Amino acid sequence: MKALVYQGPGKRAWVEKPMPQIQKPTDVIVRITRTTICGTDLHILKGDVPTVAKDRTLGHEGVGVVETVGAAVRSFKPGDSVLISCITSCGSCANCKRQLYSHCADGGWQLGHLIDGTQAEYVRIPHGDNSLHPIPAGSDEEALVMLSDILPTGLEIGVLAGQVGPGDTVAIVGAGPIGMAALLTAQFYSPARIIMADTDGNRLAVARQFGATDTVDVSEGNAVERIRALTDGVGVDVAIEAVGVPATFDVCQQIVAAGGRIANVGVHGAPVELHLENLWIQNINISMGLVNTNTTPMLMKTVQSGKIDPARLITHRFALDDIMAAYDVFGNAAREKALKVILSA
Amino acid sequence: MKALVYQGPGKRAWVEKPMPQIQKPTDVIVRITRTTICGTDLHILKGDVPTVAKDRTLGHEGVGVVETVGAAVRSFKPGDSVLISCITSCGSCANCKRQLYSHCADGGWQLGHLIDGTQAEYVRIPHGDNSLHPIPAGSDEEALVMLSDILPTGLEIGVLAGQVGPGDTVAIVGAGPIGMAALLTAQFYSPARIIMADTDGNRLAVARQFGATDTVDVSEGNAVERIRALTDGVGVDVAIEAVGVPATFDVCQQIVAAGGRIANVGVHGAPVELHLENLWIQNINISMGLVNTNTTPMLMKTVQSGKIDPARLITHRFALDDIMAAYDVFGNAAREKALKVILSA
Repeated sequence: MKALVYQGPGKRAWVEKPMPQIQKPTDVIVRITRTTICGTDLHILKGDVPTVAKDRTLGHEGVGVVETVGAAVRSFKPGDSVLISCITSCGSCANCKRQLYSHCADGGWQLGHLIDGTQAEYVRIPHGDNSLHPIPAGSDEEALVMLSDILPTGLEIGVLAGQVGPGDTVAIVGAGPIGMAALLTAQFYSPARIIMADTDGNRLAVARQFGATDTVDVSEGNAVERIRALTDGVGVDVAIEAVGVPATFDVCQQIVAAGGRIANVGVHGAPVELHLENLWIQNINISMGLVNTNTTPMLMKTVQSGKIDPARLITHRFALDDIMAAYDVFGNAAREKALKVILSA
Repeated sequence: MKALVYQGPGKRAWVEKPMPQIQKPTDVIVRITRTTICGTDLHILKGDVPTVAKDRTLGHEGVGVVETVGAAVRSFKPGDSVLISCITSCGSCANCKRQLYSHCADGGWQLGHLIDGTQAEYVRIPHGDNSLHPIPAGSDEEALVMLSDILPTGLEIGVLAGQVGPGDTVAIVGAGPIGMAALLTAQFYSPARIIMADTDGNRLAVARQFGATDTVDVSEGNAVERIRALTDGVGVDVAIEAVGVPATFDVCQQIVAAGGRIANVGVHGAPVELHLENLWIQNINISMGLVNTNTTPMLMKTVQSGKIDPARLITHRFALDDIMAAYDVFGNAAREKALKVILSA
């Protein structure tokens, strides 16, 4: 079969690899029908994630059809349509029992990281009963690919950890796919205002179409002052960091109101300076983490009911065979006006 | 009347001052019967809190007897015994209506900070109806002084913000009065273990008497490794920072388990380095803030029922007239084996 592999910093290739095999009775082999590329894959390609070995197949998002199942798999059979969760979870360790699937003792973020991932014709999914979700007949498969990672991440690590509630003023710093996922799912909880901040005017225009009430173009300078001015100087109830660099975390520190929350969603590669000398007295809360994907079943219902349409995030479509070209587009997202690219087999 | 005033960095004096007067109809004048000295007063004396003006009367804790009330005061009359909250609150602004009394639009931490405080024979309490609590007859007044600030602070900003729950492993970094207040109130919620860390062997011995299941003498080195070893390498569910310097915050970052909470209680004067490059994936929560004192009525019931005895925190007793000597003792707390000093008029 064919697979997109990491070959060390800056290097990727679409290569022939052996078909994955059942290794444990709880494994499921899935034939990929749709997958996508995540900002995290670009981080890996830059060499930012040293735990990814050379020749690893990338990708942790996708939908497909069950090809074979291990002897212990109870919930799936060959031919079933499935949504692949970016998080592998055994369902029975201490962390799984408190829905902290991201820190499963035999799982967590494995796909396209510690084991071969979904940017391939076939993928092995450990703990298939817990790590896959059944797809109802007639579903929009492209939309569901957004539920492997980015929608639950935006919801769980941004909106829910940030405790977005009715009447709140929310600022989302970073209008990439994860920021947009937070924007879409924040609206479940009826905030009064959602301010979107980014350096990319095109993304801000898209954010307004997606429900942002205000946008701040960071490239025009004084972003902190402008966001604070939008709140009459009070600051925002919730600041969602959706980039992953010290500068954007710092914006969040400066715009959060007393009693507010900073929800860090970004993947960081460096420490940040936390201004406790100012913030200790501000009664704020800072959250961070890897998605648990415990909200995926709920999100599937919101997609099926039409409450949200995550397919709006898809800007480019390619055949799986053209994934090298898709990476070229996604790697120049601003120039290409790209949010999510979909690859179909 | 006499009052303890700040006279600039390093300087304090017990001086004659005019009696406080009713300035607004919601004011109450209280004759102080007992007060105490807080670590924050020492910070002020070091010059760390530049918002404190020269000749300001210090102190934000105490109990007393109502002397006079303004025309709009409904809940108190001359002769009533009252507990003074360290937080002044109007009860009707937007923040008060969500119990964020610490950020009251016409209050917050005012006493011994922006207005004259409780280390005096008399004090003016603004918004008396909201900022005072009635003391039932027969109460232990010394114990109740601990409810002006340190017990609600340990409970609200340490235990509740840190979401201490049954079965949790809690580490409290810093065994001063605030750390001890967190230790006493954490036990309301039945954690499995409470590990107390400090450099002072005497304080650690007291902590064991107060319910700590484990103690770590930080002066012996490798505190992080030793605390982690106590948890089989997993880390603690809740790390409570009760000192206010970068080194102790850093210990908390290194001992918290995936899915855990850091509750910062310490008053910081400098930024800290937050290791988001490690913590972004750890699903942790960091809280911080100034006490709201919304738990004070609940704490009064726990004292009256004998559930906790905060008078155990009192190590030294002085007459109010001897407050200069009391500061000398509290300023050398380790040598004097001092936790809280009580001053009685």
